[in-house]
Amino acid sequence: MISEFDIIRRFFSRPTPSAVLGVGDDCALVRPRAGMLLAVSTDMMLAGRHFFPDADPVSLGHKCLAVNLSDLAAMGADPRWAVLALALPEADEAWLAGFAEGFYRIAARHGIELVGGDTTRGPLTVSITVMGEVPQEFALRRDAAHAGEDIWVSGATGQAALALEYLGGRAQLSEAARTACLERLHAPEPRIELGRRLRGLAACAIDVSDGLLADLTHILEASGVGAEIWDEHVPRPPALASCSDQDLVRQCVLAGGDDYELLFTAASSRRAAIEALAAEIGLALTRIGAIVPGAPTAVLRDAKGNALQVAVKGYDHFR
Amino acid sequence: MISEFDIIRRFFSRPTPSAVLGVGDDCALVRPRAGMLLAVSTDMMLAGRHFFPDADPVSLGHKCLAVNLSDLAAMGADPRWAVLALALPEADEAWLAGFAEGFYRIAARHGIELVGGDTTRGPLTVSITVMGEVPQEFALRRDAAHAGEDIWVSGATGQAALALEYLGGRAQLSEAARTACLERLHAPEPRIELGRRLRGLAACAIDVSDGLLADLTHILEASGVGAEIWDEHVPRPPALASCSDQDLVRQCVLAGGDDYELLFTAASSRRAAIEALAAEIGLALTRIGAIVPGAPTAVLRDAKGNALQVAVKGYDHFR
Repeated sequence: MISEFDIIRRFFSRPTPSAVLGVGDDCALVRPRAGMLLAVSTDMMLAGRHFFPDADPVSLGHKCLAVNLSDLAAMGADPRWAVLALALPEADEAWLAGFAEGFYRIAARHGIELVGGDTTRGPLTVSITVMGEVPQEFALRRDAAHAGEDIWVSGATGQAALALEYLGGRAQLSEAARTACLERLHAPEPRIELGRRLRGLAACAIDVSDGLLADLTHILEASGVGAEIWDEHVPRPPALASCSDQDLVRQCVLAGGDDYELLFTAASSRRAAIEALAAEIGLALTRIGAIVPGAPTAVLRDAKGNALQVAVKGYDHFR
Repeated sequence: MISEFDIIRRFFSRPTPSAVLGVGDDCALVRPRAGMLLAVSTDMMLAGRHFFPDADPVSLGHKCLAVNLSDLAAMGADPRWAVLALALPEADEAWLAGFAEGFYRIAARHGIELVGGDTTRGPLTVSITVMGEVPQEFALRRDAAHAGEDIWVSGATGQAALALEYLGGRAQLSEAARTACLERLHAPEPRIELGRRLRGLAACAIDVSDGLLADLTHILEASGVGAEIWDEHVPRPPALASCSDQDLVRQCVLAGGDDYELLFTAASSRRAAIEALAAEIGLALTRIGAIVPGAPTAVLRDAKGNALQVAVKGYDHFR
C-alpha cells in the first residue's frame, strides 16, 4: 500500500517557485512582500457535512480550495500560499490524483502555491489554510461599513442552495437551471479578481457563504450599523426565471449559502467606478440597498417601501 | 444549545495584540517583520488515532498546539500566529473551556496568538496551522547536513512511546517512570528556546516525532549523506533506568515517536558553544553520532564499532 510519505511526494509536491522552501521540511519557508499585511484564513470541510462522501474528487479538490480563496477575495488579498491537512479513510490513488488535479488547477489559476501539509488516516476531512497579501489601507474589513454607503452584491446568489434543494428532492428544475445550480454548488468560483479590484473603491466586504442576509448581518454587527435591502433589486439568477417555485428561489437568493459571491459596501461617489469595473471584468455588480444608522439588522423592503418578513438565519453547525 | 459563533466568541476570541485584525473577519490580518521568512506548518490530529477520544481537554489543547510549535522549533523560528480548525461531536462547554485553557496557556508561554479558526460538527478533529518567523540565513533545514558534522539530540527520547506501551498493557513501569512517561505523552514541551538559540550554531534540525532513527533518516535523505549513531551515547531517560525491560526501553529511545525533542547537526567547532548553551538553558544536549559521506542510512554502532540491527521504521498512517 502507498505510504503517507509517498502520498505527499506523488500527489502534493509540485514545484513552489514562490516559496523559499516548499513541501517536505518541518515548516515551509516563504517570504512575504515588504509593506503588505498577511491575510490568513482556515476552513475545515467534512464528508457528510460539507460535501457528499462520494463527491467527485476533482470537483472536491477545486471546491475545498475555492471556499478558502473566497475568504482572501473578501479581504481584497492576493492569494499566495496554502497548506493542506487531509484525513483519508484509505489511500486511494485514483481519488488522490483527482483531488490533486482539482486542487492544483484552481490554485494555478489564482496564483496560490501549496507549500505544506499533513496526511493521516481517518474520516474524509479536508482542512486548508490560505495566506494572501493585501496593503493595509485597502483591506476589506467587516467592521468598515458606514451609514450612507451603498450595498452591492456580485453575480447572483441562490443557485448553490437551490442545487441542494434539488438534490434533496424538494425542488424541480429545468435542465438548464439544474446545470447552472449544480455547477455553482460543485465548482464555485472565488471572486479573487473582484476583491483585488475593489481595493480603494469599496470600504468593506464579506463573501456570501452563510446566506446574503446572514452575511450582511455579520457586517452590520461588526460595523455597528443597520441596512435596508430592496427586495426587487436583489439579482435572481437568470437560469432560475422559469423555475415554478419562485418563493423557494427567493428564499435561496436571500438566505442560501455557498455561492461565494462578494457582498460589499461603497460610498455613493463610487457608483460609476463600480459599474465600469463590472463591465471590465465581465461580472454583474448590483446595488441592492444602503447602510443606515441604527441597530445591526437588515430590513428587507418591497418596491413600496414596506418591510418584508424573511427567514435570514445562516447555517450554524451546532443548531 | 450554544451556537458556532458563540463557541468562537466565548472560547477562542482572546485579545491578539500582535495582529492587525484577529478572530472574526473573513481573514486575520498580521504584519510579518521585515527581513524575516515566514515559517508555516500544519498538523491534523484525530481522536482515536493521535489521542484517546476521552483525553483530558486541557492536556489535549496543550498537546495539539505543542506538536505544531515543535515544527517551528525545528526550523529555529519565533512563534507568532496560529489558526485552529476544530470538528466537535457536540458543543460541550466544559470540554471547550478546558481545551481553550490548555491551548491558550502554552500559546502565551511561547508568544503565539490564535488569530483565526473554523468550527464545525463532526468526529473530534483538531487541525492547527502555525506561523513563525526566522531570518533566512539561520533557518534550520533538513537538507543542510554535511559529512563531518556532529549529531546532537536534546533531552531524551523514548518516554512518550513507553507511555503508550504502558497504556496498552505491554510494559510495567514504576510510579516515577509512569509519571515521567505519561507527562511526556500528554504534555510534551516544544523546544522553542533551543531552536531559536541554535541559530548560527547548528546547520540542520528536525523534531523527533516519528522516532529518533526515522527522523534522522529524513535528514539524511534530504541532505544526501549518511550517519553513524553510537548506541552507548544515545541518552536514556533517567526515570527508565529501573525499568525491567531494557530492550523495550532501547527500542522506544531509538524508534519511539512523539517526544518532540530536537535532533540537530553542527560543525565540530561548535561543541563548546553547544555545551555552554545546554548549561545555560538547563536542557541536556548530547552528541550521539556523526554525519558521514555515503548512502542516506543511519548505522547504529556499539562501543566496539560493530553495526547493530534495530527496527527504525517511523510511524506511517497508511501502512
